[in-house]
Amino acid sequence: MNNFWKSYPQIEEELTNVNEIIKKNIKCREKFFETSIGDMVDRGGKMLRPAFLLLAGKFGDYDKKKSHNLAAVIEMLHMATLVHDDIIDDSKLRRGYETIQYKYGKEYAVYTGDFLFCQCLMMLSEYEYTMENMKEISKVISKICMGEVKQYHLRYARNMNIRNYLRIVSGKTAALFALSFYIGAKESGCNNRVSKSLGRIGYHIGMAFQIIDDLLDYKGNTQTLGKNAQKDLKRGYYTLPLIYALENDQENRIAQRLKEPSLSEEAVNEIVELVKENKGIERAKKVANRYTKKAFDQINKLPDCESKAIIYEVVEGLLKRDY
Amino acid sequence: MNNFWKSYPQIEEELTNVNEIIKKNIKCREKFFETSIGDMVDRGGKMLRPAFLLLAGKFGDYDKKKSHNLAAVIEMLHMATLVHDDIIDDSKLRRGYETIQYKYGKEYAVYTGDFLFCQCLMMLSEYEYTMENMKEISKVISKICMGEVKQYHLRYARNMNIRNYLRIVSGKTAALFALSFYIGAKESGCNNRVSKSLGRIGYHIGMAFQIIDDLLDYKGNTQTLGKNAQKDLKRGYYTLPLIYALENDQENRIAQRLKEPSLSEEAVNEIVELVKENKGIERAKKVANRYTKKAFDQINKLPDCESKAIIYEVVEGLLKRDY
Repeated sequence: MNNFWKSYPQIEEELTNVNEIIKKNIKCREKFFETSIGDMVDRGGKMLRPAFLLLAGKFGDYDKKKSHNLAAVIEMLHMATLVHDDIIDDSKLRRGYETIQYKYGKEYAVYTGDFLFCQCLMMLSEYEYTMENMKEISKVISKICMGEVKQYHLRYARNMNIRNYLRIVSGKTAALFALSFYIGAKESGCNNRVSKSLGRIGYHIGMAFQIIDDLLDYKGNTQTLGKNAQKDLKRGYYTLPLIYALENDQENRIAQRLKEPSLSEEAVNEIVELVKENKGIERAKKVANRYTKKAFDQINKLPDCESKAIIYEVVEGLLKRDY
Repeated sequence: MNNFWKSYPQIEEELTNVNEIIKKNIKCREKFFETSIGDMVDRGGKMLRPAFLLLAGKFGDYDKKKSHNLAAVIEMLHMATLVHDDIIDDSKLRRGYETIQYKYGKEYAVYTGDFLFCQCLMMLSEYEYTMENMKEISKVISKICMGEVKQYHLRYARNMNIRNYLRIVSGKTAALFALSFYIGAKESGCNNRVSKSLGRIGYHIGMAFQIIDDLLDYKGNTQTLGKNAQKDLKRGYYTLPLIYALENDQENRIAQRLKEPSLSEEAVNEIVELVKENKGIERAKKVANRYTKKAFDQINKLPDCESKAIIYEVVEGLLKRDY
């Protein structure tokens, strides 16, 4: 895990335990899985999804063991989708380290994702989780698959539009955020109103989070950020800033450059500039702000408790970045 | 479905219904999944696993709806592994039709497999299946992943031996056959003794089935069968006949030829001949016979009923082929 939770030692400690559970559940005769997935766990990320699950659980009758196990499942699901996404995107690096598909080959990456999926199923069947929550979980994985396929399907697409973009983001990012909040609450016995309200908070956070991620790709002037935009453009993923800019670009200069068979660095740089000129970032920011506002409106309505305060602060840090 | 079950109209009808259930459960907003998976269903195979599940269920208190749904889950799991295997093997054809990975690309194939997995989870959560059976299912998927990774890992391997070969077959084929029999019985309320005995029958059938498949690759003198052996050899999958032949080959002629960087048709033909000369097929056949015998010994001990008679006949047709 990185330092994201260091101001909240209680959560950090619990997340460390979640990682231990993950490591325990990837142990098997095939040492390959243990090593490759174990490495991913050690490098860690922000662990936003399991953290939100735990924080949501604290609105109810918090059962530490059950919640930690469920948080591990959610993080493992997320990891499975990352491993498979890296195959699709042919990614060399993730969080600064070599991806499984790059290091070991696509073949291993396919099975590593599958193995993670089935270990999740195993963990779900070991604990007495409600069938309703299992159904919610499977619905979300299905949404993630649909979001990813839609994204892949609409590469380089003329009919890529705001509605399709939002649907993709809703599937590939917001659905799992919503689920983390919702089942965290639900398994702690929160009533339907509170659970659904937390689920909506997760959904809005997820939407804003992804839109901000996408617009930062166009905003940065550092090498790294530029590279992300370049990668997305080259593989034909048209995100919100570009979609808006294409709408505004009366002279069709962006569309013209996008048609070039393999985008040169110079072409990408010009497109990024044109996106800025045509208010692509500005308009995308407005959409992100709308989701952020919705998230905070809902957070404010939650019953007061420590968990509410932490969610508020963390979401503020995530979504009110200087962008 | 092909004509495999036409002598058993009752089973054939039930399997048709299982296919309907599969088709219902792949319906979603992303038409791609419906089309690509629907095509697979329409072409069909022998549907051995769901059929065995139904036949095992008839030893107990058979609940048609529940069993059909579970049979659909098992077939979908099998389909998911096929779709992902075709990515690993870069297969162009499966059952004479273009594979998803070949027709649409590896990217779509990854998500199609994932989608099938999660639809299985959804179906399992919709019915009131016992948690114990869900655990069994997840264990088996995990075994399949481990078997596949082991197989991939041991390509071109000097340390490929009988023990490793049997472990691979046990994971990638026998485990799912065993599961089909076992959960079919268990969900119909069969007692532990009968369920476990049916599970063992499935295991032995699966082992024999795969070994026979592998040895037929070396036996055929038609173009097609030769091509399979060629493909397995080229991708470094060393199966039982070859492993035995390597053991017997005092002059190391097979090992010598296997070392050639890319096997020519002539090299493959010579290896196939050398495998025959060195009694590779003969010895593999003995192992298959041992598993077949174990299966029949167990089948004979089952309580008499129509289902027992059908299992006996079908397994006879499958495992006592002229090989």
